[in-house]
Amino acid sequence: MSGSAKVAIVMGSQSDWETMQRAADVLAELEVETDIRIVSAHRTPERMAEFARGAEESGFHVIIAGAGGAAHLPGMIAAQTHIPVLGVPVKSRALNGQDSLLSIVQMPAGIPVGTLAIGEAGATNAGLLAAAILANGDGDLATRLKDWRAAQTARVAERPE
Amino acid sequence: MSGSAKVAIVMGSQSDWETMQRAADVLAELEVETDIRIVSAHRTPERMAEFARGAEESGFHVIIAGAGGAAHLPGMIAAQTHIPVLGVPVKSRALNGQDSLLSIVQMPAGIPVGTLAIGEAGATNAGLLAAAILANGDGDLATRLKDWRAAQTARVAERPE
Amino acid sequence: MSGSAKVAIVMGSQSDWETMQRAADVLAELEVETDIRIVSAHRTPERMAEFARGAEESGFHVIIAGAGGAAHLPGMIAAQTHIPVLGVPVKSRALNGQDSLLSIVQMPAGIPVGTLAIGEAGATNAGLLAAAILANGDGDLATRLKDWRAAQTARVAERPE
Amino acid sequence: MSGSAKVAIVMGSQSDWETMQRAADVLAELEVETDIRIVSAHRTPERMAEFARGAEESGFHVIIAGAGGAAHLPGMIAAQTHIPVLGVPVKSRALNGQDSLLSIVQMPAGIPVGTLAIGEAGATNAGLLAAAILANGDGDLATRLKDWRAAQTARVAERPE
Amino acid sequence: MSGSAKVAIVMGSQSDWETMQRAADVLAELEVETDIRIVSAHRTPERMAEFARGAEESGFHVIIAGAGGAAHLPGMIAAQTHIPVLGVPVKSRALNGQDSLLSIVQMPAGIPVGTLAIGEAGATNAGLLAAAILANGDGDLATRLKDWRAAQTARVAERPE
Amino acid sequence: MSGSAKVAIVMGSQSDWETMQRAADVLAELEVETDIRIVSAHRTPERMAEFARGAEESGFHVIIAGAGGAAHLPGMIAAQTHIPVLGVPVKSRALNGQDSLLSIVQMPAGIPVGTLAIGEAGATNAGLLAAAILANGDGDLATRLKDWRAAQTARVAERPE
Amino acid sequence: MSGSAKVAIVMGSQSDWETMQRAADVLAELEVETDIRIVSAHRTPERMAEFARGAEESGFHVIIAGAGGAAHLPGMIAAQTHIPVLGVPVKSRALNGQDSLLSIVQMPAGIPVGTLAIGEAGATNAGLLAAAILANGDGDLATRLKDWRAAQTARVAERPE
Amino acid sequence: MSGSAKVAIVMGSQSDWETMQRAADVLAELEVETDIRIVSAHRTPERMAEFARGAEESGFHVIIAGAGGAAHLPGMIAAQTHIPVLGVPVKSRALNGQDSLLSIVQMPAGIPVGTLAIGEAGATNAGLLAAAILANGDGDLATRLKDWRAAQTARVAERPE
Repeated sequence: MSGSAKVAIVMGSQSDWETMQRAADVLAELEVETDIRIVSAHRTPERMAEFARGAEESGFHVIIAGAGGAAHLPGMIAAQTHIPVLGVPVKSRALNGQDSLLSIVQMPAGIPVGTLAIGEAGATNAGLLAAAILANGDGDLATRLKDWRAAQTARVAERPE
Repeated sequence: MSGSAKVAIVMGSQSDWETMQRAADVLAELEVETDIRIVSAHRTPERMAEFARGAEESGFHVIIAGAGGAAHLPGMIAAQTHIPVLGVPVKSRALNGQDSLLSIVQMPAGIPVGTLAIGEAGATNAGLLAAAILANGDGDLATRLKDWRAAQTARVAERPE
Repeated sequence: MSGSAKVAIVMGSQSDWETMQRAADVLAELEVETDIRIVSAHRTPERMAEFARGAEESGFHVIIAGAGGAAHLPGMIAAQTHIPVLGVPVKSRALNGQDSLLSIVQMPAGIPVGTLAIGEAGATNAGLLAAAILANGDGDLATRLKDWRAAQTARVAERPE
Repeated sequence: MSGSAKVAIVMGSQSDWETMQRAADVLAELEVETDIRIVSAHRTPERMAEFARGAEESGFHVIIAGAGGAAHLPGMIAAQTHIPVLGVPVKSRALNGQDSLLSIVQMPAGIPVGTLAIGEAGATNAGLLAAAILANGDGDLATRLKDWRAAQTARVAERPE
Repeated sequence: MSGSAKVAIVMGSQSDWETMQRAADVLAELEVETDIRIVSAHRTPERMAEFARGAEESGFHVIIAGAGGAAHLPGMIAAQTHIPVLGVPVKSRALNGQDSLLSIVQMPAGIPVGTLAIGEAGATNAGLLAAAILANGDGDLATRLKDWRAAQTARVAERPE
Repeated sequence: MSGSAKVAIVMGSQSDWETMQRAADVLAELEVETDIRIVSAHRTPERMAEFARGAEESGFHVIIAGAGGAAHLPGMIAAQTHIPVLGVPVKSRALNGQDSLLSIVQMPAGIPVGTLAIGEAGATNAGLLAAAILANGDGDLATRLKDWRAAQTARVAERPE
Repeated sequence: MSGSAKVAIVMGSQSDWETMQRAADVLAELEVETDIRIVSAHRTPERMAEFARGAEESGFHVIIAGAGGAAHLPGMIAAQTHIPVLGVPVKSRALNGQDSLLSIVQMPAGIPVGTLAIGEAGATNAGLLAAAILANGDGDLATRLKDWRAAQTARVAERPE
Repeated sequence: MSGSAKVAIVMGSQSDWETMQRAADVLAELEVETDIRIVSAHRTPERMAEFARGAEESGFHVIIAGAGGAAHLPGMIAAQTHIPVLGVPVKSRALNGQDSLLSIVQMPAGIPVGTLAIGEAGATNAGLLAAAILANGDGDLATRLKDWRAAQTARVAERPE
């Protein structure tokens, strides 16, 4: 984590880390530096506003935001920056992330959040999509991403065991 | 609408007014002054923050907030004030307000939003609940509220026509 | 629990107590006295009617009602008093509280129930919202509530562990 | 409608009559007398309690209750009588009767409501089920019911037009 | 179980017995004789047809049918007898009984099934509703049912422990 | 429609024909003869049993069955024949075919129904799948089906207008 | 597994095998040879295209495809062959297979997938439906299938234990 | 539309254009060139594969893909390119886009699709997110995007009319 990270990973609470770690992991595999923070839309709204408004100046090119339940974090960050925001619906206790998903994806016209799947698959994919976005301007990363994808394909067995 | 209003009615966009008008109407019937504003969590996040942080100083005792889809307005206001916030899920285009309802009601522990029904019934009831809250310290309003309720009961016919 | 409590916490059955305890806990932290009862809409309808109709005379300023499944308790209390009623949907066995939520929140125009999230988060928030309502007329409580909220904010770590 | 009716049809509001009329119609076809009333759980809770507690003495053998949204009427009547209660979920505005259905059918152990389909089909079937219940002790009605069913079968064409 | 039982309890498979036992239990408490069978709409359609068509001659006054998933048993029995049929949606593996509930309750106009809650609460209530139906013509059973209900009310504690 | 038809199209009521016609249309385009009938699981259970049990002898190789709401027809036919049954969930009034879909697709292990999409698309596809099944033993039909598919592909424009 | 298998069983990943094994098992009981493969729509799209386009030449008469979440495998195979495709929605982590079901069954007009129930029951039934399709042209298999079904019926006990 | 477009907008059928036009419109306002095509995953799988595999060589930096129902287009394109893919769930006939949303967003780990809201709002936001992605390497576009956002904020009235 440093000042030169182009991807920020933020989450609403410590308990989201178990899920969001997958985004950090895949970006580490792809040698993409990340800045990881807890930023709660509801408990630390000022910290969130500072983070979002300063995102461009901080040099971030993509923000990955994960939250559960009435998950306002991704949308509220997107409301305060034009940097691309990717949202990860964290699985919630009673409704299994259906509330998280709808709270993140159903943004009104004007403020986009690119939403991934509920839970760990979504967190991994947020990392991959962030890498794909950066790879537009970084040929080496594009190569690493293509290699990662090729390796994933190669790991698929012909027949089940 | 004036500086002495104890109830603020805010909504995310002009299109929510058709629904939220019911809150204003019932409060007008009960002679409760209201301050009515458009405050968009997503399009005017700074205006929202100023409104929410200044709510106590503005003399509000209750805030009614209506929004649809990924409805972040009620929860984000509640995140920035300790004044009671009542949320009205406005019926959304694709999902009939199911997204609005979950985005408003499923708040995490620590930041409450008292949520009413989807649509116009919810807006009316937000007005009534705001009046009930104020009536705790205002005997005349309590009387008017009880009269309103009694009149409602009296209007129920014995048999359908 | 005593005659001077301004907040009543009622629930449909003993099994709801595990959830509703959170409301009692947070109100205890805020030094708000509570009166806690089991009142079943379905098994003790007369007890419920007596409780609801006597709520004003008992000195309650807010009623918190929790129930699960076809959760009629909050709405039926609200039908019989003008005191503000807050509803907590308790997680149900088959449908995870989706039935509880809709049974509580979808009240018709005329009888409001301010509904919180499904389960423990909702119970905690019912306590906080009750405190916020009382704090309108009690500066000391307002201060304690603001302190509680500030402490909550302060507990949010900068980075996940 | 008279004192000798064995079936009561009650509904939460005038607007439910369009749906509940189907119950009255099919019972009229079967020559079963009905007593039809508006009884709102929320707006006339005392009238509801009186009705439910007096149902046995009034000579009712079945009560058909229809309501929409947070539909508490069937369950609250069932809570106050041991006479069989049949519930009809009336189609609601935002959620198409999904809230009505869950509010009626998901009753806790101890207080049963026999629930029919959402809307007009449910109302017709509540009438038929009420007739079937009465037919246990009324051979003439059993014959009329079997004839009604046979006629229904006979009306099914061999091929679509 | 004997030829003089007025209530039949049928279920689609052995695995439903864990749930349906509650119907048998409460009817046993109320001294109502029951005839309990496995009758699968899908695996034994002929047995089902024979059972349903012979129900009246067998002397049944109420049939309780429980099934899960695409739960066709209650509706298909109701299609072949005019005796009142009560349906119990058994909790299903993937969808927690939401499929069972809709498959049972959403019957078309003409063929009623009185549907109870998903799972064990629904089974208990099917037993109680069957008893209530029989009690219309059996004063002693009516008394036992009222006593059962009164005992249930008496068991509700004043305060949670 | 004749005795040599290998595909039967059955539906629960006249009102399903508007949807099911699509199956007939596409099979006519593919020169596959069909036998089209109204067979109601609920209103004509004996006709349904006769049809299903006689399906093999009637020479049918595939049965397409459409129904809405608590849609028992496809599953009940499948329970009484080993001929392949394809189910079409007809859009229902209150729940838009969600009830129809679950009632048809969630069959227990042992009795399969191959289920298509809700509504007209599903009816068209039931016709196509029936043709694909017959084409296994009919080279000419296989050719016509491949041509139909190729024509469909050719109709897709390059760019929207 | 050999070149003469008429049924292919394919699945999106190794983890689907636990479910899809049921299809293989029932087909083995019915002495139907199967060819079992892992073919991921998302991770091995070229392998999938080759498989689907070569299915006819490979001699397959039915393809059973299982997948979970955004389950594109059955539909994408169906898009590239006219051989009948049966889809099995594998239970997913967050949404219990509701996403799998809708992703498989809601195919647009023109490309059919015969969809079975979520999870193991669906896999078993896909095997049975595949056998029924083959049995149209294989009298011995038809006999084995009828025997299997008769044995299933015979195993249903009269009464629960 | 030309060879120098960095954003491709693809959709499954002509009928999706009414929705997807919003993506084209907002990108036109932002002076971002687009290449717009109909590419059906199901009816033109080869055209889709060619498009996806050639996307990098075609110079695309972002692909926006819209589809409805069992919406496989966005995921299947993402399976065949590492270029960022944004998915727009088009509102479907029976299920209002709930099927489209789940089919697009619930992608397995390894193949990301950044999903926007159901319908027109989602299409507009896909355009905005595409612009935000391009703006990372295009200062002029970043300025236009910030101006667009500021103008949007400025259009929000203070009070409803």
